[in-house]
Amino acid sequence: MLVTGAAGFIGSNLCDFLLDQGCEVAGLDSFVTGQREFLSKALKNAKFQLHEVELADFEHVKAVTAVFKPDTVIHLAANADVRFGLQHPRKDLEQGTVVTFNVLEAARLAGATKFAFSSTGSVYGEPEIFPTPETCPFPVQTSLYAAAKLAAEGMIQAYAEGYGMKGYILRFVSILGERYTHGHVYDFANKILDNPKEIDVLGDGKQTKAYLYIGDCLSAIWHILNKCEDKINIYNLGPDEHINVDQSLDVICKVMDATPKRNYSGGKRGWIGDSPFIFLDCKKLKSTGWKSQKTIRESVELTIRWLLANDWVLKRRQT
Amino acid sequence: MLVTGAAGFIGSNLCDFLLDQGCEVAGLDSFVTGQREFLSKALKNAKFQLHEVELADFEHVKAVTAVFKPDTVIHLAANADVRFGLQHPRKDLEQGTVVTFNVLEAARLAGATKFAFSSTGSVYGEPEIFPTPETCPFPVQTSLYAAAKLAAEGMIQAYAEGYGMKGYILRFVSILGERYTHGHVYDFANKILDNPKEIDVLGDGKQTKAYLYIGDCLSAIWHILNKCEDKINIYNLGPDEHINVDQSLDVICKVMDATPKRNYSGGKRGWIGDSPFIFLDCKKLKSTGWKSQKTIRESVELTIRWLLANDWVLKRRQT
Repeated sequence: MLVTGAAGFIGSNLCDFLLDQGCEVAGLDSFVTGQREFLSKALKNAKFQLHEVELADFEHVKAVTAVFKPDTVIHLAANADVRFGLQHPRKDLEQGTVVTFNVLEAARLAGATKFAFSSTGSVYGEPEIFPTPETCPFPVQTSLYAAAKLAAEGMIQAYAEGYGMKGYILRFVSILGERYTHGHVYDFANKILDNPKEIDVLGDGKQTKAYLYIGDCLSAIWHILNKCEDKINIYNLGPDEHINVDQSLDVICKVMDATPKRNYSGGKRGWIGDSPFIFLDCKKLKSTGWKSQKTIRESVELTIRWLLANDWVLKRRQT
Repeated sequence: MLVTGAAGFIGSNLCDFLLDQGCEVAGLDSFVTGQREFLSKALKNAKFQLHEVELADFEHVKAVTAVFKPDTVIHLAANADVRFGLQHPRKDLEQGTVVTFNVLEAARLAGATKFAFSSTGSVYGEPEIFPTPETCPFPVQTSLYAAAKLAAEGMIQAYAEGYGMKGYILRFVSILGERYTHGHVYDFANKILDNPKEIDVLGDGKQTKAYLYIGDCLSAIWHILNKCEDKINIYNLGPDEHINVDQSLDVICKVMDATPKRNYSGGKRGWIGDSPFIFLDCKKLKSTGWKSQKTIRESVELTIRWLLANDWVLKRRQT
């Protein structure tokens, strides 16, 4: 298995998971946002190899992939900076769409038979159907981040059709858990540590999202890769429930023993392109026999406890 | 108005049309496939300016657009080589997705308020609903050409959402008429001129598509740009009818006074990624008051007559 974004939150957990299953794993990461510490366990395993690769450099990606000859490529690397996409509009194109092409083409040239991709529930834009199934009406994109994910989905589908590689398109909700370093729980923890009396909240606090625990996410990926053998396998990955920003902040405050006054920036959306409601229909995933183990509240609590126990991750941003 | 792909089939006709409406028009073309002859009329008009620009060169596109300051950009330029996408997989990414980003970003920086894009009915892949409406279930891509069009659609939508520019996404069926230089009518005309006794036909001859006459296409573009003012305007552009390959060949043979024996390569699809049935639901377009003037058979006949009268276009390929 070849994993891109291997030193990231999901990637490093996935490498550990795959090694535990006995797989041989090559991890690729540019270490722009990835953390070497997250791979400390994997690096002790003889079946793991780590490559520092800038995925925009096609020749490098191609060379590493050609030598490792993966059966399966799991492409997770991306610009995760959803909110600030409009400040640097070319970034999602370059780090999303073009990089995905590079990894996909390298996978094809190396003879990989399966290509899995972490897409996002944000490709549904602002859907009219909740929970949103994989086959909902043709959506309209609201962010450059999601537009790049959609572009990647299309290329993978065309590759599967044209070259006979199996494509796995996994539309994730936001993932929580150990090694989480980006998103609202991270931001709130930082803010409360900084000032436990008062907290700024983007939007009206009623934006509602679904979150999946990292362990449940990994078991879903593993499940789909092993049980689904269609030419193109498209799956929503999420829980049966959702939570709004205020409710999530309640859990965070309780764990951190703080009661900050909440100052709302107002409006339905946290930022331009934010989806005010994300809730995916995961019946298709569950029909494969997969079940989630953790509730969203448990996931938020585990995440905040991990962040507090590993506060070097938080301090990176505070300084 | 700024038009990319200005020396192409649709682009050159569009430039003439816009000039006839009294617009000031800047045409951009790389002249890789565009024909200078197609702009001979436009070039006599003082309101027309032509720029030879390689759209992959962002700085050049940006500079030309910044000086002209278009209110509306109509982006038609693309790799039209749908069938051979799998032989050069990076081409659609570079000439479709990346080039669209360049034009879109140049348009934004120059303060354009409207951005129109020639997408394709192929973004519906192999739909299950016919005629296929704009809101059909989330499609799966079958060609790199369509994947690049889908990627472009997503970026335009995100720009419209994020920067307040109005987006016009026009999903075309195949277009026929004067200056047509690419597609089945062109190929069949060439083959019959070469050998009127026998002709190779890709697929089983039953692939069924919708075609729109160039004049109807131009009036639809004009109609939508002037009547539709939503943030994002997505429209199918096509006729109410469809025709299969054999029926289209009947028209061509009749005009050319030939009765070649037909040798079918067989199979439902002409090539990998070909859609065996394209028929778009154009109720939304018609609800704006637009009507088509020509039938498909009339369009095929006009196309073949134009090709025979302008056989330098055919001879380009024969030699």
